[in-house]
Amino acid sequence: MTIKVAINGYGTIGKRVADAVSLQDDMEICGVTKRRPTYEAKMAVKSGFPFYAAEKEFVSGFEAEKIPVQGTLKDLLQEADIVIDCTPKKSGYKAIYENAGKKAIFQGGEKHDLTGMSFNAMANYEQAIGADYVRVVSCNTTGLCRTLYPLDSTFGIENVTAVMIRRGADPWDSKSGPINAIEPVLKVPSHHGPDVQSVMPDLNIQTTAVKVPTTIMHLHSVVARLKGEVTTEDVIEKWDKTPRVRFVCAKHGIKSTAQIMELAKDLGKKRSDLFEIAIWRDGVHVVDNVLYYYQAIHQEADVVPENIDAIRAMCNLEKDKMKSIKKTDEAMGIC
Amino acid sequence: MTIKVAINGYGTIGKRVADAVSLQDDMEICGVTKRRPTYEAKMAVKSGFPFYAAEKEFVSGFEAEKIPVQGTLKDLLQEADIVIDCTPKKSGYKAIYENAGKKAIFQGGEKHDLTGMSFNAMANYEQAIGADYVRVVSCNTTGLCRTLYPLDSTFGIENVTAVMIRRGADPWDSKSGPINAIEPVLKVPSHHGPDVQSVMPDLNIQTTAVKVPTTIMHLHSVVARLKGEVTTEDVIEKWDKTPRVRFVCAKHGIKSTAQIMELAKDLGKKRSDLFEIAIWRDGVHVVDNVLYYYQAIHQEADVVPENIDAIRAMCNLEKDKMKSIKKTDEAMGIC
Amino acid sequence: MTIKVAINGYGTIGKRVADAVSLQDDMEICGVTKRRPTYEAKMAVKSGFPFYAAEKEFVSGFEAEKIPVQGTLKDLLQEADIVIDCTPKKSGYKAIYENAGKKAIFQGGEKHDLTGMSFNAMANYEQAIGADYVRVVSCNTTGLCRTLYPLDSTFGIENVTAVMIRRGADPWDSKSGPINAIEPVLKVPSHHGPDVQSVMPDLNIQTTAVKVPTTIMHLHSVVARLKGEVTTEDVIEKWDKTPRVRFVCAKHGIKSTAQIMELAKDLGKKRSDLFEIAIWRDGVHVVDNVLYYYQAIHQEADVVPENIDAIRAMCNLEKDKMKSIKKTDEAMGIC
Amino acid sequence: MTIKVAINGYGTIGKRVADAVSLQDDMEICGVTKRRPTYEAKMAVKSGFPFYAAEKEFVSGFEAEKIPVQGTLKDLLQEADIVIDCTPKKSGYKAIYENAGKKAIFQGGEKHDLTGMSFNAMANYEQAIGADYVRVVSCNTTGLCRTLYPLDSTFGIENVTAVMIRRGADPWDSKSGPINAIEPVLKVPSHHGPDVQSVMPDLNIQTTAVKVPTTIMHLHSVVARLKGEVTTEDVIEKWDKTPRVRFVCAKHGIKSTAQIMELAKDLGKKRSDLFEIAIWRDGVHVVDNVLYYYQAIHQEADVVPENIDAIRAMCNLEKDKMKSIKKTDEAMGIC
Repeated sequence: MTIKVAINGYGTIGKRVADAVSLQDDMEICGVTKRRPTYEAKMAVKSGFPFYAAEKEFVSGFEAEKIPVQGTLKDLLQEADIVIDCTPKKSGYKAIYENAGKKAIFQGGEKHDLTGMSFNAMANYEQAIGADYVRVVSCNTTGLCRTLYPLDSTFGIENVTAVMIRRGADPWDSKSGPINAIEPVLKVPSHHGPDVQSVMPDLNIQTTAVKVPTTIMHLHSVVARLKGEVTTEDVIEKWDKTPRVRFVCAKHGIKSTAQIMELAKDLGKKRSDLFEIAIWRDGVHVVDNVLYYYQAIHQEADVVPENIDAIRAMCNLEKDKMKSIKKTDEAMGIC
Repeated sequence: MTIKVAINGYGTIGKRVADAVSLQDDMEICGVTKRRPTYEAKMAVKSGFPFYAAEKEFVSGFEAEKIPVQGTLKDLLQEADIVIDCTPKKSGYKAIYENAGKKAIFQGGEKHDLTGMSFNAMANYEQAIGADYVRVVSCNTTGLCRTLYPLDSTFGIENVTAVMIRRGADPWDSKSGPINAIEPVLKVPSHHGPDVQSVMPDLNIQTTAVKVPTTIMHLHSVVARLKGEVTTEDVIEKWDKTPRVRFVCAKHGIKSTAQIMELAKDLGKKRSDLFEIAIWRDGVHVVDNVLYYYQAIHQEADVVPENIDAIRAMCNLEKDKMKSIKKTDEAMGIC
Repeated sequence: MTIKVAINGYGTIGKRVADAVSLQDDMEICGVTKRRPTYEAKMAVKSGFPFYAAEKEFVSGFEAEKIPVQGTLKDLLQEADIVIDCTPKKSGYKAIYENAGKKAIFQGGEKHDLTGMSFNAMANYEQAIGADYVRVVSCNTTGLCRTLYPLDSTFGIENVTAVMIRRGADPWDSKSGPINAIEPVLKVPSHHGPDVQSVMPDLNIQTTAVKVPTTIMHLHSVVARLKGEVTTEDVIEKWDKTPRVRFVCAKHGIKSTAQIMELAKDLGKKRSDLFEIAIWRDGVHVVDNVLYYYQAIHQEADVVPENIDAIRAMCNLEKDKMKSIKKTDEAMGIC
Repeated sequence: MTIKVAINGYGTIGKRVADAVSLQDDMEICGVTKRRPTYEAKMAVKSGFPFYAAEKEFVSGFEAEKIPVQGTLKDLLQEADIVIDCTPKKSGYKAIYENAGKKAIFQGGEKHDLTGMSFNAMANYEQAIGADYVRVVSCNTTGLCRTLYPLDSTFGIENVTAVMIRRGADPWDSKSGPINAIEPVLKVPSHHGPDVQSVMPDLNIQTTAVKVPTTIMHLHSVVARLKGEVTTEDVIEKWDKTPRVRFVCAKHGIKSTAQIMELAKDLGKKRSDLFEIAIWRDGVHVVDNVLYYYQAIHQEADVVPENIDAIRAMCNLEKDKMKSIKKTDEAMGIC
C-alpha cells in the first residue's frame, strides 16, 4: 500500500516535505496547495505535483497566470490518506482536516495542545504510532532533541542551559531584519525549553534566545551537566552513532555556519539542504562532567525527515523507529 | 575521442567546472588539485575525482588527514589534454602548463594579456577555436556580455553605462566584509568596462562599481542607448531567444536577489547554482531608445558553462558556437 | 522677533530639526508632539521641549508612563508661528494646520502637489519666501540638488544618470531588511529623478535605485554630461566653495560609508550627524566632458539645515539665501 | 597638580580616552601619537592635541600630508606622567615606557601577565593605587565585572554561565566580516571567563562566545546562580544604585541593540558613545535563585571611564574608588 500524502501549503517546509515524500517507496504526493501565483507555484506545477488552490478565492489568481488548478484543498483531501499542514502558524485548518476525516501533521509553529503529541523520531516515535494528529516540533527544538535525547538516554542529564542564536530571516525573505542589531528574547525561558519538554518531559532545560542578522542557520551554545562520569570521547562516540547528527571540524576549514552551508552545497542534496544537525567536533568539551558544545541548525530542512517518520508511524507503516529512520535517511541520501 | 580535463584548484570555480565537465559526453575529468586538507578536499575525493596535491609541499598535509593523493600537479598534467586554471589570480602557473605542452584556460581574475584571448561563448567562440590559451572573463563581465552582445549584434548599441552593485564576499567566506557599509570603486571606469571591451572591442561602455554587504549575487543597473527604433518588446523578444539569460518577475514574487537564489534552489541544480543571467522582465524599459534594465549574477556559477564551451572550441570538438552552447546547456540542464 | 516653531512628530527627523532650531537665535521650539510613550518621548521631555500628545487618544498612554503632557497638537498649534510636519508620509495633517491658520513645512515623503513648492536652499530659496506651505525634498533628492545645482548653474548640465544605492533601514530600525539581498526599484525612472525636477525643473536627469543591507548611508553613483569644456579641477573647485558639500578622500582612509560615519563621530555633532553631502574627492573624474562622481548621504541628517532655511524664508526672516545658509550653518557648526 | 597624560595610539580607544581626560580637572593630555596620516590624524590635530609620530619612520608620511608633528613617542614620553597604551595588542611598547621611567596603562587586548594587575574600578580600584603598570580589561570583561561584582559582593554568586554574542567588526571597519554567518569560539571556556577571574579571582564563571554580523554592540546572555534568597527586585534595586549600569526597557521601544545605540545618540555624548552597560530591565528574571539577564556592551566606549579611574589610582590622585568613579562620571556626563 502506498500512502497518499497531501501538502497544504507549498512553501519553505511544504516543498521540501513534498520532495522527501517523493523519494520514499511507501508514500506518494497526491497534491499540494498554494494561495498565490508565485514562482514557487509555477515550480510546483513544473515538478509534476497535482496542484490545488488552498481556497476557492485563490483559483482566479492562478488562472490569471495560466497556472492550471485541479481544485481546492477540499477536493485534495478526498484523495489523501494524510495531510501535512505547512501553512503559517495558527492558520486554523485542523477542523477542516477533521471534517474530512483525515490524519494530519502540523509543524512546530503550532502549540503542543493542538495535537497533544509533539514528535521527534528518536525521542518518541512510538507515541505517534496510529495517532491522528501529530505536531513535528520546530527546527530549533528538533535540533535540541536530536543531540540531547541520546545523551539523556545513555548517560543521564542533570540539567541543560542552551542559548539559541537565531537567524533573523530565511534566505528568501528580503523584508525582515535586523540588518545591524542583536535582539534578545526577554521572556525567560524562551519558548524553546518548554518546547523540548513537550517531547522529553523529564528534561531539566533552560533556554534563552537572541536574533541576529544572518539568514542561513541558527546556532546553539549548549551547556549540559551530565550524570555520572562521562568523557568528551564518550559523548563524541555516542553522537557518532546517532542518526541525523553530523560532525564538522574547524581544522578542516569549517569555522562558521557559512562553511557548513558550503559543505551542504557540495553534498549535493536538492536546494543544498542539510537535514542533519551539525556539531563542531572540536567544540565538544566535557569538563568536570559539564558538557559544552555548539550545534548549527539548517532551519529550512532539519524537520523534513521527521515529517516522513511521523507519516510512517501515524499510518502504521512501520513500528520500529530505527527502521523508519534508516529507511527515510537512505531514501533521502542522509548518511 | 574524450578530452581529458585537469582542474588546477578545486575551489569555488574549480569544483563547479569539474562537475560540469563530468556531465558532458565529449570530455572527462582526469584529476583535480588542491593545497590544503579541507572539507572541500575530502568532498573532491568522495566525488570520485582523481586527487592530486597542487605542489609537492602539500602532500604531507593531505597524508596527515588520510586523504589519498595520486601525485602532484606535474603528474596530473601528463594525463591531461587541457588544464583549467582555477587558482587564485596571479598564481603564475602558465609557465608550468607551457612546459608540459598543455592547453590551458584561465579565469577572469587574470589580465587579458596573459592569453591575448578573452572568451564569451556567444560573443567570440570562433576566436577560441584551436587556441592554446584562453581566459574566460569574470562573472560580471560574462553577465554584461551575455545581455549586451545580442542587443549590439541585433540593434546596435550607441553607448552603455552600467553600475555594478557587487556582493562583498562569497557565501562560504566568513572573513571578508563589509558588514555594514557601501564601498565605491573610485577608479573610473571600473575594470569591468575595459574587460567587456576585451571581448567586444567596439562597444562604447562605461562602468562604475560599489561593494555592498551581501554574499549571494551581484546586481547590475544598466542604461544602454540603442541605435535606431527599438521597443521594450523587441528587447525582451531578443533576450527570450538568447541562451543563458533567464527572465524573472517581481509580480511572481521575485523582488530581490534573495528570491532569485530561492528559485535557483527550486530548479534543483547541484549547489543550487544559477548558470544563467537573471533579468527582471518587469524592469526592462525602453524610453526614447534608451534601454534600462537590471540583471543579477550568480558570481560562483555563471562562468561555468563558458569554461565548457571554451574547452570544446580550443580542442576542436565543435566549430559551431550555437551547437556547443546547446550541447553544454542540455547536459547541464540549463533551459 | 523670535519665530515659534512646533514639531509635529518627534522622531528621526523631528528631533533633529528641534535641536537645530534651538541652536538658532531667530527661532525657538514652542513644543513637540509624539504618539507613544517611548524612550524618545522621555528624551524629548528631558531635553526641555514642551511636550504634547499628537492626538487626544494618546494622552493616557503618556500618563501611564508618567510622561507629563502639556496638551495636544491643537493646543500646541495655538502657540506656534509655523509647524514642521515630521510625521510618517501621508499622515494627512495639512487640513489641521490650515484650520489653525499656521504655515507648515512637510518632508520629502510627501508628494510635490501637497504644497506646490519643493525646497532646496541653494536651488530655489527665493521661491519659499513668504510661502505658507513648503516641502523640503527627501534626503536623496537633497543630496542630488546640493551637488548638481552648482554644476548646472555654473557649467550647464546636458544630462545626468544617477544610481541610488539605498540603505535598507535606518540604524534604529531592527525590523526591516533585507539582511542578505539586493532589491532593485523596477519602475524607471525611480521617483528620485522627477523629484529632483520638482526643484530643478529643467534638469535632464534619469535615476534608478536599489536597496542594500546597510543602515548608515545612501550612496549615489552619478554620471553627468556637462556643457562646454570643464575639467576635474573646475568641478572640485566649484564644490569646494559650495556650502553643505564635504570632500572625503580614500587616501586618508575613507574608503566606504563606514569611515564617513566615523569621521562624523569625530566631528562631534549631536547624534554624530553629518549634515553635509560627502563626495569622494579621489572619485571625481571628468573624461571627455563626462563627470563621474560618488556621493554619500546621511539620510537622517542632510535635510535638517534645509528645514531651518525654509523656516527663515517662509517667515520672512531673511531674503538672501546665502545669508540664511551661512547663519544656519554657523549655528549648527557646519563648516 | 595636573597629571600629564600621553596617548600612544590615537584610534578607537585612544581618541575616546583623550577626550575623557580633557574633561577632567585633575589631568590633561600632553600629546597623542599616530602612525598614518589618516582623517583621524587630521581630526586629532583639529582637536588641539599636541601631535606626535609613533615612530621616526612615520614622520615623513605626516609631512607629506601637511600634518604638523611635534616629535616622536620618545619626545612625548618626556612630557608625560603616565602613558595610555592604545596600540593594537602585542605592540610591545612596555620596554619603551619602562626605559622612560613612566607609568603605563594597557588595554584588554594584552595578557594579564604583562602588568600583573587587571583593573575594574568597582571591583579592585584599591589594588591599582600607586601601581606602575595596569591593564584595563576588555570591553566584554568590563561589562561582566560591572554587573557581576555588585551581585557577588552583595548576595554571593554560586556560579555564572555567560554567552557572549560578539559584533563581527567595529562600525568603522569595512574590511572584516562575517557578512552572513555565525562563528563560534570553539575553545571552551572562551577567554572571557578567565579574564573576569583576573579581576574577580574567586568567581566561578564559564563563558562561551560566538561572532555575528553586526557592528554596533556585543550582547551577553547571562545565567547566574545566586547564594541565598534573592528576588528579581533585589537584583534590580542593587543595579539601580550601581554606577555605569543603565536600564533599558522593551516596553519603551528598546527591543534590540539598534535602539540602545539610538538612545545613546539622543543622550548627546561625543561620538554617540554609551559608557554604561545596558541591561534590559524587563529581561531580568530570578527563578529559584537563578538569575537570567541580558546586557549590551558598546565595545568602543565602556572601558573609557575605567581608564580615567586607573590614572587616578595609579597617580595617587584619589584613594576612594567611589569618589573617583563619581568624579569621572560627572565630568563625562554619565548619570
